Amino acid sequence: MVGNSIGESFRVTTFGESHGIALGCIIDGCPPGLAITEEDLQYDLARRRPGSSPYVTQRSEADEVKILSGVFEGKTTGVSIGLLATNTDSRSKDYSDIKNKFRPNHADYTYYQKYGIYDHRGGGRSSARETVMRVAAGAIAKKYLKENFNVEVRAYLVQMGAVVIDKIDWDEIENNAFFCPDIDKVDAFEQLIYDLKKEGDSIGAKLQVVAINVPVGLGEPIFDRLDADIAHALMSISATKGIEIGDGFNVIEQKGSKQRDLLTPDGFSSNHAGGILGGISTGQEIVVNIAFKPASSILFPAQTISKNGELTQIAAKKKGRHDPCVGIRAVPVVEAMLAIVLLDHLLRHRIQNFSVETTTPKI
Amino acid sequence: MVGNSIGESFRVTTFGESHGIALGCIIDGCPPGLAITEEDLQYDLARRRPGSSPYVTQRSEADEVKILSGVFEGKTTGVSIGLLATNTDSRSKDYSDIKNKFRPNHADYTYYQKYGIYDHRGGGRSSARETVMRVAAGAIAKKYLKENFNVEVRAYLVQMGAVVIDKIDWDEIENNAFFCPDIDKVDAFEQLIYDLKKEGDSIGAKLQVVAINVPVGLGEPIFDRLDADIAHALMSISATKGIEIGDGFNVIEQKGSKQRDLLTPDGFSSNHAGGILGGISTGQEIVVNIAFKPASSILFPAQTISKNGELTQIAAKKKGRHDPCVGIRAVPVVEAMLAIVLLDHLLRHRIQNFSVETTTPKI
Amino acid sequence: MVGNSIGESFRVTTFGESHGIALGCIIDGCPPGLAITEEDLQYDLARRRPGSSPYVTQRSEADEVKILSGVFEGKTTGVSIGLLATNTDSRSKDYSDIKNKFRPNHADYTYYQKYGIYDHRGGGRSSARETVMRVAAGAIAKKYLKENFNVEVRAYLVQMGAVVIDKIDWDEIENNAFFCPDIDKVDAFEQLIYDLKKEGDSIGAKLQVVAINVPVGLGEPIFDRLDADIAHALMSISATKGIEIGDGFNVIEQKGSKQRDLLTPDGFSSNHAGGILGGISTGQEIVVNIAFKPASSILFPAQTISKNGELTQIAAKKKGRHDPCVGIRAVPVVEAMLAIVLLDHLLRHRIQNFSVETTTPKI
Amino acid sequence: MVGNSIGESFRVTTFGESHGIALGCIIDGCPPGLAITEEDLQYDLARRRPGSSPYVTQRSEADEVKILSGVFEGKTTGVSIGLLATNTDSRSKDYSDIKNKFRPNHADYTYYQKYGIYDHRGGGRSSARETVMRVAAGAIAKKYLKENFNVEVRAYLVQMGAVVIDKIDWDEIENNAFFCPDIDKVDAFEQLIYDLKKEGDSIGAKLQVVAINVPVGLGEPIFDRLDADIAHALMSISATKGIEIGDGFNVIEQKGSKQRDLLTPDGFSSNHAGGILGGISTGQEIVVNIAFKPASSILFPAQTISKNGELTQIAAKKKGRHDPCVGIRAVPVVEAMLAIVLLDHLLRHRIQNFSVETTTPKI
Repeated sequence: MVGNSIGESFRVTTFGESHGIALGCIIDGCPPGLAITEEDLQYDLARRRPGSSPYVTQRSEADEVKILSGVFEGKTTGVSIGLLATNTDSRSKDYSDIKNKFRPNHADYTYYQKYGIYDHRGGGRSSARETVMRVAAGAIAKKYLKENFNVEVRAYLVQMGAVVIDKIDWDEIENNAFFCPDIDKVDAFEQLIYDLKKEGDSIGAKLQVVAINVPVGLGEPIFDRLDADIAHALMSISATKGIEIGDGFNVIEQKGSKQRDLLTPDGFSSNHAGGILGGISTGQEIVVNIAFKPASSILFPAQTISKNGELTQIAAKKKGRHDPCVGIRAVPVVEAMLAIVLLDHLLRHRIQNFSVETTTPKI
Repeated sequence: MVGNSIGESFRVTTFGESHGIALGCIIDGCPPGLAITEEDLQYDLARRRPGSSPYVTQRSEADEVKILSGVFEGKTTGVSIGLLATNTDSRSKDYSDIKNKFRPNHADYTYYQKYGIYDHRGGGRSSARETVMRVAAGAIAKKYLKENFNVEVRAYLVQMGAVVIDKIDWDEIENNAFFCPDIDKVDAFEQLIYDLKKEGDSIGAKLQVVAINVPVGLGEPIFDRLDADIAHALMSISATKGIEIGDGFNVIEQKGSKQRDLLTPDGFSSNHAGGILGGISTGQEIVVNIAFKPASSILFPAQTISKNGELTQIAAKKKGRHDPCVGIRAVPVVEAMLAIVLLDHLLRHRIQNFSVETTTPKI
Repeated sequence: MVGNSIGESFRVTTFGESHGIALGCIIDGCPPGLAITEEDLQYDLARRRPGSSPYVTQRSEADEVKILSGVFEGKTTGVSIGLLATNTDSRSKDYSDIKNKFRPNHADYTYYQKYGIYDHRGGGRSSARETVMRVAAGAIAKKYLKENFNVEVRAYLVQMGAVVIDKIDWDEIENNAFFCPDIDKVDAFEQLIYDLKKEGDSIGAKLQVVAINVPVGLGEPIFDRLDADIAHALMSISATKGIEIGDGFNVIEQKGSKQRDLLTPDGFSSNHAGGILGGISTGQEIVVNIAFKPASSILFPAQTISKNGELTQIAAKKKGRHDPCVGIRAVPVVEAMLAIVLLDHLLRHRIQNFSVETTTPKI
Repeated sequence: MVGNSIGESFRVTTFGESHGIALGCIIDGCPPGLAITEEDLQYDLARRRPGSSPYVTQRSEADEVKILSGVFEGKTTGVSIGLLATNTDSRSKDYSDIKNKFRPNHADYTYYQKYGIYDHRGGGRSSARETVMRVAAGAIAKKYLKENFNVEVRAYLVQMGAVVIDKIDWDEIENNAFFCPDIDKVDAFEQLIYDLKKEGDSIGAKLQVVAINVPVGLGEPIFDRLDADIAHALMSISATKGIEIGDGFNVIEQKGSKQRDLLTPDGFSSNHAGGILGGISTGQEIVVNIAFKPASSILFPAQTISKNGELTQIAAKKKGRHDPCVGIRAVPVVEAMLAIVLLDHLLRHRIQNFSVETTTPKI
């Protein structure tokens, strides 16, 4: 138990189920003096909201997050920050027939085995809805990083099914409904989604998230290396099945003579490492890829078993909400998690440097 | 700071540098009653030891780990267990010329930036030698898992450079110096290593680690999901650049209708998930792949910079120790880390279930 | 930072200021299957509420705590539980004149020094109002302990100023407004409070809290001994200045031959230890005393300094809320904290014993 | 379980039993750049060593602590520090007769109930010998505090049995074997100990520990308040039964008008608070009292029970080691624990202030 918190010096603890009364979150460790408002949170929350494009689920949610504490006269005071979002739209009756059946590829079976009891409505605690609070907390972390260190975090789609992008232009990301940074691939993604909606099927995706202007020195060897904590934070997102840093799985076929990033007086000559070396940030761009599996809720009927172990059928969903690709929705979530880890590590690192002179940027 | 511990209910804390006096470890949370001796640790430590084959580094180490506490009359008592391994062979003079230079692809640069000071001999704390203690602690975890739950953890090489295995036979793993489970690929690996030693270069590798008989229900959503903690533990190992669970990065091109594992009264019909669903173990085999980058110490001279930022040269290593593929050495380390995470989660999970099956516990 | 959580296996994280929008709390680690409702929380919250007697502050608060997650069809599900209480009555204007002055014996000065910014309204985060959430979380812990282990926790007043009780009768505690277990001392307490209200002054108090039917074996040496964690939890309550277990400070003058509790086949022959020996519960009654300092808000004008260091005056409070003795209000808080620690330790201890009684667990 | 660590940002983890092979400790989070040698540790270890006076136990121990890692060219490097002390003198045969009996007032009974197994030799893990590592780690903390912030920590005896000191002179503390700061009470303490040794009995004691020059702002509300963490650390020491801060239990009878410390432009006018207000340090002297119960091992035979619940007798100790007053030995331990908490909090606090300007000393 006790798995609902993340972070050591910037800690986020959450609660809330998709069909419960509300979702909430407590942020502990945000330094005082950061100007923050509910509007600051809304931008990323809106990016997450389904219904902003025809390509994602029709389930509508208000996603209005209120700040209940920890901010006084517009600035954080250093005490714990409470956030709350009330659930407004559930359409519970969509789920009544699956009360005693385990939906394939959902967490129903494992939650039931673990707890002996679970909320069958929607995904309960395992639903993607819990990401509202990750994004809200991440928005605060992003603002702090940006204002104090000019660190920026950005995520985008690099692959969906067999469609792969060829180039990355940050300015294109918000111009389409896929967070696609390559203007020439948007049509292909549209076609893919259209076909999937017709088939009633879903597909996987690969996202990339980068962080720039990260100070050198973040990461706490040997177990809380920065890459290890990034992997942990990103793999804690639903539907993730793989993560790689820098050249990732491509290093398997690389020779040492080529793979290494050489140091010159002007900086590194390459970035195969993806910004992390020996578990510590090098100051270069941090580059991470994440693999998302296809969405679970599809329009195919399926065999499964009921709670008492009998073979049964899950009916095809005629109405309701159908996610052809969960990867699209995860872009703001992935940014939020990387921001949370970076701020946590930045705060943890500070302890170390306050007594020693280094050539790093003075934090 | 404070990154030298891993685990919540089975916690391992380590210290020690490659050229320091000794390495050590404290294990906190091992349940009482487990029979354990120094011999139990030696098997996995020997598997880790270089020199047991011509394919790995010639650096010889005793790797004898002593148990200093926590075991009485052959059984763990529940109090903290102290382990110690004295460093016996360092050949410090191998490193004197690089005292003020940052070796490419080593952690020298980042450690110096972070701490303002670092031990330049060998890899210091960032050296692979620290894995001795991971393996020793992992041996204890493995024994506990095996004796109490029949859980077994096994790792092996699946790819090195462009050479990929075709089949997996556990009985072959210890029959060659590569931990290769495919008898028909051993020659190809031998050739590859031979060529690399001649070139003085190195190559990456992919390992797979599996766990069988894992009880269903392990994992603590939403942040300490089992896959997230596995990713964290494995990515904390030096030289790792990617991790994937089950079908991993292959899910990107999979459709939901094919990717899902259906439940039947006799169990799951497939295992695309790799044994983890919703962040919780399903009872199926846990399957994880890890990508290792090529070794840093190679026989090529390289440009780099010195501590005062000037361009300089790192001489080629004529003598010394040369690791063509660090992946080979990491097999016992990867097993150890997975075992540590599984035992930690098993202990954490137990808290939950004790109210389901007990009324008044016999404490 | 990051001081807003308590507990390892039963963890309580809180937020909220006295004059903010709301107070809240997340409970992580509550085992599944516990029947809990908002009514269950109200009993202890009502005991805490000022206004239920003329002896405590007139500040009225609704103290209605809502359960927002973690409970499904009346039972805990094992996921995180969110609690929320909206602040309804603040009377902010009472505090406007002290915006730039540090009230003596309040946390204003230290909070300002620490954070550089603080909410001056009421006590902000340092106000006693934050105890609402301690009591709500404690109510859940108490129910679990009672229903599963028959553990009961009870606190009461043993001394206020120079008035000391002579006997303890649990049935008397709720019969007066002082939580006084000695019917013959109630008049003396009434007189003392009456005099203090007239003077506009305040007084300290000593509370005693006991726990019965505690299983033997709770406590995690050497640092998380049960007494150490109890001391931590109780001293985290505002206005506490001392804590003692069993005979407490009286042991200073006791001889070893008299102080020790002898073991007989029928149990211990005495309980000088107060139920804890070697940092672990003995199964006997746990007995703890806590010293509370006099309330800070009194009707005396006082000298102090302003934020820019100048001598100034804090005016006497004519209206508003005046607490002659904060000890009275702390009784339910002290019970809550002891319950939280005991449940946390009970869950932590369980990990240890499951290998003694199981072979293959039915998970 | 997992109770063998203390601290969040300066963390100390220990292992070792009184009659095991060795004791050890890992310090994680010590900032880099601190000059430290084994000699630095010996001073406080020697103060702890029995045999340096006729008033404490005759058990002799080498108490030589080796530094095994984390220090390079005389300075801490920021990586984990390993300390080791080999046990050299045990005289195991002293304990063979009590293998199956629970000694009164020792932790035998509770350890057996908790773990189902315990090391009966000496006190095993519950022995006072584990304090060697607390003192060694504390010595490092003390040095850091002194060199970087001029913080000093000092403890001394204020009462033993009915003998109470009248004045405090730091220069007297090391001039007698009692750590007594009042030259005029040394004779009385000598007489008391002499009488107790003849009787074969023991007595309790009260120690006081103070810290000066503590920066304002240390402490992390609401649960990790500085006083709460100090209470936790000190109550984790064997034989402690009570702790109080500042006026402690005397506040019960104090009126608010007298108890409060007024702020003036020149600082506080008094220090009833003992240096902590609202859970945060005020910059004033931190004053803490700790009550120690009488030693368990005395020369009186006693009734007790055996492991199978039968009435039995523990023979009087004729030879061996007899501690008339454990309080004397705890003085360096108490200093060590306060130093560890202060450094931990100082490091935790730093995270907060690095972005905000305050009037505090620039840390």
